[in-house]
Amino acid sequence: MRGVSHQKWWGWGVEGVAFSHHDKPNMAPFVRERVGIDLDAPGSPPPTFEDIDVPEPRIGADLSATLTSAVGEDHLVTDDLDRVVHTYGKGLPDLVRIRAGDLPRIPDVVVYPGNEDEVRAVVDAAVEADAVLIPFGGGSNISGSLTPPAREDRVVVSLDLGRLNRVLEIDEASGLARIQAGVLGPDMEEQLGARGWTMGHQPDSFRHSTLGGWIATRSSGMQSDKYGDIADIARGMRVVLPGKVVALRPLPSTSTGPSVREMILGSEGRLGVITEAWVAVHRLPENRDIIAYLYPSWASAIAAMQEIAGSDAAPTVTRVSDANETAFSFSTQKVKKGASGKVQSVLFDVLERRGWDMDAVCLSYVGYEGDSAKVRAEKAVVGKIVRKHGGIKLGRGPGALYDQKKFDTPYIRDFLLDIGGLADVSETAAPWSRLMDLYFGTLRAAQEAFDSLGVQGFVMCHLSHSYHSGACLYFTFAFAPGVDGTEEQLERYWVVKKAIQQSFIDLGATLSHHHGVGTDHAHWLEEDISPAGTDLMVSLLRGVDPGRNLNPGTLLPAHREW
Amino acid sequence: MRGVSHQKWWGWGVEGVAFSHHDKPNMAPFVRERVGIDLDAPGSPPPTFEDIDVPEPRIGADLSATLTSAVGEDHLVTDDLDRVVHTYGKGLPDLVRIRAGDLPRIPDVVVYPGNEDEVRAVVDAAVEADAVLIPFGGGSNISGSLTPPAREDRVVVSLDLGRLNRVLEIDEASGLARIQAGVLGPDMEEQLGARGWTMGHQPDSFRHSTLGGWIATRSSGMQSDKYGDIADIARGMRVVLPGKVVALRPLPSTSTGPSVREMILGSEGRLGVITEAWVAVHRLPENRDIIAYLYPSWASAIAAMQEIAGSDAAPTVTRVSDANETAFSFSTQKVKKGASGKVQSVLFDVLERRGWDMDAVCLSYVGYEGDSAKVRAEKAVVGKIVRKHGGIKLGRGPGALYDQKKFDTPYIRDFLLDIGGLADVSETAAPWSRLMDLYFGTLRAAQEAFDSLGVQGFVMCHLSHSYHSGACLYFTFAFAPGVDGTEEQLERYWVVKKAIQQSFIDLGATLSHHHGVGTDHAHWLEEDISPAGTDLMVSLLRGVDPGRNLNPGTLLPAHREW
Repeated sequence: MRGVSHQKWWGWGVEGVAFSHHDKPNMAPFVRERVGIDLDAPGSPPPTFEDIDVPEPRIGADLSATLTSAVGEDHLVTDDLDRVVHTYGKGLPDLVRIRAGDLPRIPDVVVYPGNEDEVRAVVDAAVEADAVLIPFGGGSNISGSLTPPAREDRVVVSLDLGRLNRVLEIDEASGLARIQAGVLGPDMEEQLGARGWTMGHQPDSFRHSTLGGWIATRSSGMQSDKYGDIADIARGMRVVLPGKVVALRPLPSTSTGPSVREMILGSEGRLGVITEAWVAVHRLPENRDIIAYLYPSWASAIAAMQEIAGSDAAPTVTRVSDANETAFSFSTQKVKKGASGKVQSVLFDVLERRGWDMDAVCLSYVGYEGDSAKVRAEKAVVGKIVRKHGGIKLGRGPGALYDQKKFDTPYIRDFLLDIGGLADVSETAAPWSRLMDLYFGTLRAAQEAFDSLGVQGFVMCHLSHSYHSGACLYFTFAFAPGVDGTEEQLERYWVVKKAIQQSFIDLGATLSHHHGVGTDHAHWLEEDISPAGTDLMVSLLRGVDPGRNLNPGTLLPAHREW
Repeated sequence: MRGVSHQKWWGWGVEGVAFSHHDKPNMAPFVRERVGIDLDAPGSPPPTFEDIDVPEPRIGADLSATLTSAVGEDHLVTDDLDRVVHTYGKGLPDLVRIRAGDLPRIPDVVVYPGNEDEVRAVVDAAVEADAVLIPFGGGSNISGSLTPPAREDRVVVSLDLGRLNRVLEIDEASGLARIQAGVLGPDMEEQLGARGWTMGHQPDSFRHSTLGGWIATRSSGMQSDKYGDIADIARGMRVVLPGKVVALRPLPSTSTGPSVREMILGSEGRLGVITEAWVAVHRLPENRDIIAYLYPSWASAIAAMQEIAGSDAAPTVTRVSDANETAFSFSTQKVKKGASGKVQSVLFDVLERRGWDMDAVCLSYVGYEGDSAKVRAEKAVVGKIVRKHGGIKLGRGPGALYDQKKFDTPYIRDFLLDIGGLADVSETAAPWSRLMDLYFGTLRAAQEAFDSLGVQGFVMCHLSHSYHSGACLYFTFAFAPGVDGTEEQLERYWVVKKAIQQSFIDLGATLSHHHGVGTDHAHWLEEDISPAGTDLMVSLLRGVDPGRNLNPGTLLPAHREW
């Protein structure tokens, strides 16, 4: 669709960008030893589109005509590539399936409405025809929210919001902007930045995800400590339902009963199509710095993070990697030429002589924004806490590097798939008191899962998104499944993924801090919010969409669908 | 009920505490001139209980027996006084009706369960018998949430949570406390304070309201700028529904679909009975200061407040009164003896000579908490902003006075009722860009309402609860209705109240920032959250409580009840 860009049909990001380890000499040895995957093994590149067997669209002439009159001929697409692009998100199971050409059910038609009236016409037509409607933003979902149910007999309509990509107005006095839901992160920040504003929301998916998608999945960005989660940022919104529009005005706070705003947040397409939102925006900061610190151990790092969260400093980013993630991160550095490489090696020697176990060190980033005095004061507060917990400051260099590379990580997954490795993530949040148990318990659960499969396996973790009462832990795991075949690989993947998710729930943490429920995490919903809490959600969804036309199958475990 | 204290059956607060103007020599002249009410007029004291005609309880032997076996004989009460205490909240219409002995429908029985199992037994029994169940905390609601519908034919059970009054545990590492829902503010803070903690939540109703009530109405306290609204504070909760318990664990943030936590918040009894919650608690602050400032005008004060909200200072309290509220506040000062009275009068002379219009001055309070360096830095930031907008610092004295007297204001309403005056409040929130229009538009609407009634009338306002994108405006209005008779007086009251509420909605503000919807504000719900947004709420409520047994009639406008 002209003017609407999509990610690769088979993987993360855009054509022409891929991960390579050839300029990172320490990475292959690290991955071979620690993960059990040979990065130099002969790879199977992703399939060519011509090799994929794409089902014919099943859509009747009536609905086709109604949709065409809704959006115009140019904005209704049934070609194979477009429909395949709209079939999956970018979760690991999605990537494994698409690379295998596994397409049990794909959208029959993709429509690109250009305004809210057209969205209304599409929604009305789809529900009137008892079709299934799946809203689509950047397609970066990794919880299985975007895929039509395999056995769906009804027509499946994918509603791509990509043409709704404008910042409509800025209320400068209030720090609020009205923005269309289909805008991608970089485009939105460019429009805001041109007028001196920023939303400050930077999820890992930032380059390939949309405002509507963030709202629909309760997204959180790496600067959430300052800017808030999307649930804090999105103050008002418009949502299209059959025959009507939910219109919530931007309010700083309100006492109008059970929060409808907080029902739309996280609704993953089941409560309609979000067309626009009023979001909090901020003046571009005078200074912006990300400083790296190093801790001698995970325990000292977590203690420091908790103390920073409770301190008078209000950093934008608080992040610390465990020893595994730190080691992995160091292994992906490019060859350091000249002084800076030397400085690092000298520093590490010094620390080792001081008695540090360099296999246990944890790398941390803390972000600062504001005027010079505030940034200086906050750095002083954080510096004191870091020192108290035995850490040291590495300085601005690694922080700047992190800032540049932060959106690149997902590309590694596709590279690993090329050589038969499986990698994915699971993230959660819990009170501070539970974080250490949660961390070690989850590592143990993952290791037991690896052992049961007879594979080596690797897990690494970072803490990010600090709150008064707790924080997010974000786990990345990888292993060579040792089997071929989509189903066999996915079966092994699920052994590990399920062990990690179950550990979250068993140790008092949530099924997801910011990736959403989708179909992948729905299994744990009742254990997370209790069966009776799930009843409330079912009451809401069933009352709003009795025909199950709006993205059915996501959010709820299968036995709770009506 | 032993161990459970209640407010006066006919008014605010506890027996033996009342408002008097006799030690405030400037007040009677002020009120006579500005409000048109003669404080020294001969008053009609509140009625004696014996004069009230209390309907007999209508409850069958079966339900009575089941409830008795649920809570024990000692904790089921059908006596007249107890039932009358549980009939009304403390809104102005409530007070007018109860003083007139107007009791169209009162609870048939009051039960005091002592634990969650007993709450479950009561809820199950009530719904099984198709009775109406109304949860009752401190009875301080002023939105009409507590009163049984006048034409309710079914048995009405009031469930008083007063025996559930303990802080159960404190998770010190996470800054979280698990607290029973029926605890009153002072009792809770005493239990927390004994262990060095505070929740920091201080609504005007603090002394007579409960944790469960705060959650059920989306309460906000005067220190919300630091501690957050109750929606931020309450992280996990347990809620009893027929046959089940919604159990939400304390999580700093989560991405589990439409937020069930945010459905319980504001549910005003319609989604079950909240029995306990995990709330964020904080260490008692090292320093706590409230400093008073004076601005030459409302416009300069609002501009300063907005700048403070966007600054690096993070005060606990930001509050400024308009000229009317400032003048009223000065009129309620006791006679100043000696130096401090003299200082004030000298200061005012100086300001007048500087060209200030002393009828336009606006009094502001800003609260600070934290270590000395933080408090000092924040005072410096605020001080600079105050000066930039032409304001001056008055110092600690008036702030300390405010801090002591802040919970006393509601007593004035009862005193005014004694002498035939009507006074009430309406509060709202809106983006910063709309506040001035909202303020003047609402003053105009109120004045037009007074004019249409041919009464003098008085409105005053303060800003409190500042957010990034807006703030709360809190209006207090008073007038002598010039008519006798409950219905006649209330009719006139509603002319003014409706004009103010409609002005909120028409000018982009919400029907309530923190008092809730109840029955009094339900009329504006669809205009606030849109008819389609109301559909979502109806879907939820109807799905959870198809028989309309749980506090029916509150939250939704009458034509949306099913």
